[in-house]
Amino acid sequence: MQSNLIYKRETNTSSQNPLDIASAMFESDMRAVNAIIIERMQSDVPLVSQLAAYLIAAGGKRIRPLMTLASTALLGGDMTRAHNLAACVEFIHTATLLHDDVVDESDERRGKATANIVFGNQASVLVGDFLFSRAFQMMVDDGSLPILKILSDASAIIAQGEVMQLSMMNNLDTNFDQYLAMIKAKTAALFAAACEVGPVIAGSSPDIQTAMAAYGLNMGIAFQIADDVLDYAATREKLGKTIGDDFREGKITAPILYALADANTEEKSFWLRTLGAREQNEGDLQKACEILQSHNALNKGLRLARDYAEAAVKALDILPPAPLRDLLCDIAQYAADRDY
Amino acid sequence: MQSNLIYKRETNTSSQNPLDIASAMFESDMRAVNAIIIERMQSDVPLVSQLAAYLIAAGGKRIRPLMTLASTALLGGDMTRAHNLAACVEFIHTATLLHDDVVDESDERRGKATANIVFGNQASVLVGDFLFSRAFQMMVDDGSLPILKILSDASAIIAQGEVMQLSMMNNLDTNFDQYLAMIKAKTAALFAAACEVGPVIAGSSPDIQTAMAAYGLNMGIAFQIADDVLDYAATREKLGKTIGDDFREGKITAPILYALADANTEEKSFWLRTLGAREQNEGDLQKACEILQSHNALNKGLRLARDYAEAAVKALDILPPAPLRDLLCDIAQYAADRDY
Repeated sequence: MQSNLIYKRETNTSSQNPLDIASAMFESDMRAVNAIIIERMQSDVPLVSQLAAYLIAAGGKRIRPLMTLASTALLGGDMTRAHNLAACVEFIHTATLLHDDVVDESDERRGKATANIVFGNQASVLVGDFLFSRAFQMMVDDGSLPILKILSDASAIIAQGEVMQLSMMNNLDTNFDQYLAMIKAKTAALFAAACEVGPVIAGSSPDIQTAMAAYGLNMGIAFQIADDVLDYAATREKLGKTIGDDFREGKITAPILYALADANTEEKSFWLRTLGAREQNEGDLQKACEILQSHNALNKGLRLARDYAEAAVKALDILPPAPLRDLLCDIAQYAADRDY
Repeated sequence: MQSNLIYKRETNTSSQNPLDIASAMFESDMRAVNAIIIERMQSDVPLVSQLAAYLIAAGGKRIRPLMTLASTALLGGDMTRAHNLAACVEFIHTATLLHDDVVDESDERRGKATANIVFGNQASVLVGDFLFSRAFQMMVDDGSLPILKILSDASAIIAQGEVMQLSMMNNLDTNFDQYLAMIKAKTAALFAAACEVGPVIAGSSPDIQTAMAAYGLNMGIAFQIADDVLDYAATREKLGKTIGDDFREGKITAPILYALADANTEEKSFWLRTLGAREQNEGDLQKACEILQSHNALNKGLRLARDYAEAAVKALDILPPAPLRDLLCDIAQYAADRDY
């Protein structure tokens, strides 16, 4: 069944990144996950299925369910259970995206108009609730209380992380500890849970379970810091991705915190006006990028992301060497160093 | 422990309604439930605790957790577990209220400004998510997969019911079957779940579990129909409660469906304008009440509610006579016939 699970780091001379390689390795598993997602998002209420289908069509990289598949395969767990639980992880993620879009009044995600623009805030909130409840129904079908605990704990942490983000919005008094606590909760907790499900399915030792959770947590922190850096990365704009969403919303992220620490009086009032009061004029984003560049803030962010990726890699030391372990290590490093 | 559980229907000559009597009988249990609610809504994120405290202060009748307590006590189940699970039921209910307020753009509930007005839609959505996740954490602590199944099933049904309500809003083609399916999902499913938890805690037979769920479902339908009737009941306004919320939002409820079935051409265009297009002028609510009165629509709604209350009472025939069974029967009838 898993004859395709071969990853040889040294022979990987292609330009493929490790996430693409993982997607290719787990292609048939991801197909099974997608089939479950499509089957379980159906509802007798047409608007529910329509909105869910819209989200599924929007696609996304499906990194989180991929982490559940990879961690289960690495430890030799039952892949059929992994398919079901990977779909749960994606449902929880999609529900938080739906609620986050309402929250942020965003109008675009992944280049498509967000669901709340097309279907209304009301339907987005409720379909998020449906997907979230459906995920719990599927976990109950799976029947593992430890897994229900992992994912309900993660869900409660995510919601609190989102509220933290709300409290920090436009607040230039935010410090680095608060920022890290927030991204840990908002983003990394679900990566940790997605990776911890694997060893539970496989019946691995508590040590291995803890290690996989630590891997996911640190990888998720690296992933989010990189995301926050990329929102100001001009190279990204060359790739056709928008930049500056965080700036427009007044989010206080790692690059901003680095720039604030080194800001002179003029820069301080620039940040207070643009991020604190959200009074933004033409050219402000450009100026923000220049200030960040002058303080080396993006590189500092990148270095921080790499530190967390390194911690993710270290967490896997407990496991015997294996091609899939190498792949997970490479994915963590790529999460910090990606260019999209 | 339950020495206060005595309900003698024939000696109840006071003006107290059966819900008040139940609240008094389970006063110490409700205190325990409230203590759990307050303890478990705490969060390290101040805004979460603040918003949750605001909701708890708003109070409400706490009927749903009371049903869990009463059904557990009736069947001799462990009341300590019932306290915890009653708090879960209330958390799920509060989460749906929070999301419903965002959805409906309501600005008042129970005479207080709703949370979304005071704290913003964003925080309301996220704290709803937190309470919902917290409920699942508490169920996991309780450790019963059958109870997790009952409440995750109910949650998925509620979300779909809310979306159904959204689809029916301002839609005068809604028929009675659709209306009943909607209130069953939106409201009655949680009453059914709240009552079904009791026999599961008590380890009662599947027949009794089914009967208690049927009691809760029918009682919940009666409760919602009565609610929909009361929104047009002028006597309610005398009690200091507002009427006409459903009218203003263009909700298609039982009284409207009865009036539509008998509407002449002029009335039809009145409903199309006021509910369909939501073009409402001074005096329209008054006129709506008059039309409903002229078609006996409120009384027809009341009769329908009573039919469901009767079905709830019938569902309890399977149980041996007991004072608490009588009280549950009286509560079902009161749910249909209350004046608040």
